[in-house]
Amino acid sequence: MRLALAAALLALPATTLAQEAAEPVTPASVVAAAPASAWKPIDPADLLVMDLAPDAAGEPRRVVIQLMPPPFSQGWVENIRKLAKAHWWDGTSVYRVVDNWVAQWGDVDETKALPEGVSERPESEYSVPLFPDLMAHLQKLGSEFAPPSGEADLDSLPNAYFQLRSDSYAPMALHHKGWPVAIGSRDNHTWPTHCYGAIGVARSVGSGGTGSELYAVIGHAPRQLDRNIGIAGRVIEGIEHLSVLQRGTGDAGVYMEAEERTPILSARLGTDMPDPPRFEYLDTESASFGEYVRLRANRHDSFYLHPAGGIDVCNVQIPIRRVPAE
Amino acid sequence: MRLALAAALLALPATTLAQEAAEPVTPASVVAAAPASAWKPIDPADLLVMDLAPDAAGEPRRVVIQLMPPPFSQGWVENIRKLAKAHWWDGTSVYRVVDNWVAQWGDVDETKALPEGVSERPESEYSVPLFPDLMAHLQKLGSEFAPPSGEADLDSLPNAYFQLRSDSYAPMALHHKGWPVAIGSRDNHTWPTHCYGAIGVARSVGSGGTGSELYAVIGHAPRQLDRNIGIAGRVIEGIEHLSVLQRGTGDAGVYMEAEERTPILSARLGTDMPDPPRFEYLDTESASFGEYVRLRANRHDSFYLHPAGGIDVCNVQIPIRRVPAE
Repeated sequence: MRLALAAALLALPATTLAQEAAEPVTPASVVAAAPASAWKPIDPADLLVMDLAPDAAGEPRRVVIQLMPPPFSQGWVENIRKLAKAHWWDGTSVYRVVDNWVAQWGDVDETKALPEGVSERPESEYSVPLFPDLMAHLQKLGSEFAPPSGEADLDSLPNAYFQLRSDSYAPMALHHKGWPVAIGSRDNHTWPTHCYGAIGVARSVGSGGTGSELYAVIGHAPRQLDRNIGIAGRVIEGIEHLSVLQRGTGDAGVYMEAEERTPILSARLGTDMPDPPRFEYLDTESASFGEYVRLRANRHDSFYLHPAGGIDVCNVQIPIRRVPAE
Repeated sequence: MRLALAAALLALPATTLAQEAAEPVTPASVVAAAPASAWKPIDPADLLVMDLAPDAAGEPRRVVIQLMPPPFSQGWVENIRKLAKAHWWDGTSVYRVVDNWVAQWGDVDETKALPEGVSERPESEYSVPLFPDLMAHLQKLGSEFAPPSGEADLDSLPNAYFQLRSDSYAPMALHHKGWPVAIGSRDNHTWPTHCYGAIGVARSVGSGGTGSELYAVIGHAPRQLDRNIGIAGRVIEGIEHLSVLQRGTGDAGVYMEAEERTPILSARLGTDMPDPPRFEYLDTESASFGEYVRLRANRHDSFYLHPAGGIDVCNVQIPIRRVPAE
């Protein structure tokens, strides 16, 4: 690869070579340069750490989930905390995997009793009224927003232009407190969006679900599920342990044979672990995040010939990193 | 699952039960009811059939790719036909897999000589001027299009409202002759879009690529690659043989060890096979497809409480099916 790259560079005129030498800022370089104040810790109480049985080579498989913060989905999140405290998922399995769709786990037979206090949550919890913190964030972005005029240079547009946008599923979508959210028009309701890695609450028709059966999105964002299924969190590390699982061949992608399932050894809240992993995310209200989104929408690294000029809310991966142990 | 469903139904009032009994049309039911005339054959000359080495259980792994039709990307498509005819990929491998991104194959060492007549194609081929067939399709949809007024009922909108739309990356996106395409504003150029399963032409900086190194998208649509990489086709069967592969841990997701690679046994054009698989796709210019898109954007099956009211171009899976052997 290196040889081909060198050959390609040699074929370029000198001015381009000079540009290559001074690579412009990239989304990655903005994240690397973000000040410590732009990083926010993720509370261990919001972590669900799920250990799958080791893989065929004996390697451990840990999936770390961040639970959804208030005011979204808190009924399911509270259920999930109770289920984890009761060690309810221990001995259950990942029993359904559908390509470009989801990997789902829990009690495939649905015979296991739920812990005390865990019951179905109503579908009305799929969205919440626009709340003050989000309204303030919206107003701030709105005050910085400027629509392009005529043949506007993308580089002259403010970060807010790329951060606040309509999308194909909602009048408005943006990131708030580290999460992608959409805002409706008729009732000013807001809801978390189904992006890659989102954790949804599986349910039957006519039920809001409890949170005992969960799935992770492992394909293109199935946004049609927004407001039709509760989103209880997202995978922040180890999604590849779910996305590589063999797809199921039974109805709706459920495995035909019990041996195909992936056993879940344990699922624990961070606060119930002696030494939980620690993470932080790039504050979506920070200047660094605004610059990051702008650069993802408007790439100038040398690989890109045509900056897109826009980006959909699910194609902005929120920077999340491990906090080194002290 | 059946028990839970039955319990949920029993809890519903009788009027709802009656609605359940008469399930409204769904995207799947529209596809199932589409007349034979709405299905178009895929030419075996446009198929690239790639056989990977059997999996750990000894099961065969076949990936079927449909090559991009004119006027898009034909330089790379012609190269790919020459590479297949020369059996160039036989003995190469899938050597790079990145979660929520791509699985890439070809000659990892880039030392294998290319067949006569296979050379790099210029980046100018990433898009083409708006062409008559697409213009006619646009005009037809435009004539059927009606914007919603006020609190319009989604069901009262014509199919064209859901088929022709702006998206986060282009002023206009739609489906044409079975493929998702975007249309720009400034220069009236049009290009194929990077959706799940799209086959892209890997390249180095400053090169348009040849088509010998290819990748398949195995995650959320990386639309920022549109017009920055040639799209030469899409996987129409067997994507799961690529999407489940272990993710690479080396630079850019390249496998660290040769043993991790998945060998490619052969890659052949359909026309060079004694008994090629046969496929057909739902004509994206048909009334059935229009209804299919509308229903995907505006779900009324009993599972859905809140129809999205829209859909992004990459979330419309084009119905493609096997043609039974005669």
